[in-house]
Amino acid sequence: MPTISQKGRRMPESPIRKLVPYAEAAKKRGVKVYHLNIGQPDIHTPEVALEAIRNFSGKVVEYSHSAGIASYRTRLAKYYEKHNIFVSPDEIIIGAGASEALLFAFQTIMDPGDEVIIPEPFYANYNGFAINSGVNVVPIPSGIDSGFALPPIADFEKSITPRTKAILVCNPNNPTGYLYSEEELEVLRQLVIKYDLYLIADEVYREFCYDGNKHHSCMHLKGIENNVILIDSVSKRYSACGVRIGWMISKNKEVMQTALKFAQARLSPPSFGQIAAEAAIDTPDSYFDEVLVEYLQRRDLVVDRINKMEGAFCPNPKGAFYVVARLPIDDSDRFCQWLLEDFAYENQTVMLAPASGFYSTPGRGKDEVRISYVLNTNDLAHAMDALEHALKVYPGRK
Amino acid sequence: MPTISQKGRRMPESPIRKLVPYAEAAKKRGVKVYHLNIGQPDIHTPEVALEAIRNFSGKVVEYSHSAGIASYRTRLAKYYEKHNIFVSPDEIIIGAGASEALLFAFQTIMDPGDEVIIPEPFYANYNGFAINSGVNVVPIPSGIDSGFALPPIADFEKSITPRTKAILVCNPNNPTGYLYSEEELEVLRQLVIKYDLYLIADEVYREFCYDGNKHHSCMHLKGIENNVILIDSVSKRYSACGVRIGWMISKNKEVMQTALKFAQARLSPPSFGQIAAEAAIDTPDSYFDEVLVEYLQRRDLVVDRINKMEGAFCPNPKGAFYVVARLPIDDSDRFCQWLLEDFAYENQTVMLAPASGFYSTPGRGKDEVRISYVLNTNDLAHAMDALEHALKVYPGRK
Repeated sequence: MPTISQKGRRMPESPIRKLVPYAEAAKKRGVKVYHLNIGQPDIHTPEVALEAIRNFSGKVVEYSHSAGIASYRTRLAKYYEKHNIFVSPDEIIIGAGASEALLFAFQTIMDPGDEVIIPEPFYANYNGFAINSGVNVVPIPSGIDSGFALPPIADFEKSITPRTKAILVCNPNNPTGYLYSEEELEVLRQLVIKYDLYLIADEVYREFCYDGNKHHSCMHLKGIENNVILIDSVSKRYSACGVRIGWMISKNKEVMQTALKFAQARLSPPSFGQIAAEAAIDTPDSYFDEVLVEYLQRRDLVVDRINKMEGAFCPNPKGAFYVVARLPIDDSDRFCQWLLEDFAYENQTVMLAPASGFYSTPGRGKDEVRISYVLNTNDLAHAMDALEHALKVYPGRK
Repeated sequence: MPTISQKGRRMPESPIRKLVPYAEAAKKRGVKVYHLNIGQPDIHTPEVALEAIRNFSGKVVEYSHSAGIASYRTRLAKYYEKHNIFVSPDEIIIGAGASEALLFAFQTIMDPGDEVIIPEPFYANYNGFAINSGVNVVPIPSGIDSGFALPPIADFEKSITPRTKAILVCNPNNPTGYLYSEEELEVLRQLVIKYDLYLIADEVYREFCYDGNKHHSCMHLKGIENNVILIDSVSKRYSACGVRIGWMISKNKEVMQTALKFAQARLSPPSFGQIAAEAAIDTPDSYFDEVLVEYLQRRDLVVDRINKMEGAFCPNPKGAFYVVARLPIDDSDRFCQWLLEDFAYENQTVMLAPASGFYSTPGRGKDEVRISYVLNTNDLAHAMDALEHALKVYPGRK
């Protein structure tokens, strides 16, 4: 039997999916499982997007332009104007989710063996895209005690080698919820100029900022316009994960011309998804107002409850809909599995993502979990009850 | 300014798209352009698929399972039973088009520097996927005089090296329309056994077989069940290119487990596309009957007309909806550009795909073009009128 690839063997199993069989087994035993492990919100997709799909009147579902439907890219450019980001439609390439857009970006700017610096913990699938592209992730640590602020400039500089091609940041951050300040972005700007690097900014949670904080985009950084690649998506913004529409943006013409060749090889992004995503641009502001109020309540509930649990600590992040919390446990992989396999409180339990999967430095994140606050406050309260009780009886409690 | 990748520089521009600016300029001059350059059929998508989209009643467009919606994979397995192919739902991974499925397959079984043997001419984007994966395509020639039959076994054996991991065939073939016989598949089977290779079979045109010929699937080959990877798609079958739904199938558990990790990294395939594709399985047989009659008329028209043009030759292929024709011209790239830039007959011209883009051996295909017979017979007749006239006046006529 022929062998599989080295790359295939090195591909990590998704940390948010590897516990799925245990969750399924728990459900079979009749235990109610609260899913706080994944970023699949329960928020409704805007009606205007669903309506566009239901009103589809075409007779042939055709390929779109490889970079995406022109009218959609034109309207996206308009959307960015509201955020003081000025791009033209040909500076946008639509992909099958931010995942594909990020793969285009990696493939366009990096060769196998090149390095991308990412503050850790980071979105676990960055690892998969890096392995897919033959690129090495160089993690630099951000810590829970500072609420996962950007690591100091010296840490970046220590990690820069001749193979370093890019810095990748997610802002607001998945998994930490951290929202980078203007000063932190300025640090990145200086690094990018000094070492002539690309800056890849994953800003898919742009709209999810709390407590009056404002999002600062890497697209605002002066003098590095040709170095910045913005990654964006409708998945979280409009709770439309399944449409698989994300995109990359760059003002660097060579980057866009090259990325377009990767896009052409796979012909086009999904047409229905684009139709829904284009319509979603008309989502009324009131939708976001309600969503933000909802998420804020959820965040407050989760942060408050966890910080009241003995030995636990949860920073109060300003963005996205995740927190990374430190728990008094020996090993978060073991704990999260135990929650599903051996524990129930009032016949309920909770599924969390062990934070170890979001670190690439071995051993880090062992007493941390990522919690996605994607359920309503009633469910979240039940989930927190279960977690609180679990920490009292978990055999591996520290 | 930081550099772009070697891979990016090596990525070919799509041969079916590089003439687009010339076509657009022609249209601006008021010239009617018949698009025979791309595989975008004018056939209607089955009503049952469009209806499923219009009836979408969900409130949240969620991620599906990374391998695709379970009910869809179950029904796909049923679809294959009709073709005497027996697979289980967990032997199927749905992708964003056959393009993504093929990328999963390449990444799963091949490392950078590995080789895949492909009879040429071949679907041009295989080159893109190979470069994307760092894999080398080793072409072996099939020729127009034999109608692009499978090259002799000796040609394969000459090309096999220690880095050869797979043979890739497209059956029925894009761009040639060639339908492989049972005997030809037996040759592949023997090669696969003797050298322990993977056999990747792109069978997206399975339903498009003419003149009473039957399609033989690589999934029918005995004793190499763990070596075969089937690539399939709804794009052409249901004229639904824009839904971006394709898939890979393998009975090799290690291949599927590994491919699933690549699939998990990008979360899920498009949900709306899957809904349309699942519904399309209920397309009545009468739809295909009509489509086949239509394509047969088109093929006959094109083959007949070209063979009547002086100095031209077009085999009469038994499948798909493409032909590769030899024309009395100096250079098909130049000719196809000239058709758009400098030529019109009764204010009409035709856009063809230069065959050079479908060969990876330099210099091959210079006097050949690929014609997709994806327009109705009336339009096709006009397009052939234009082509006939063009060949009479083209300055580079041989």
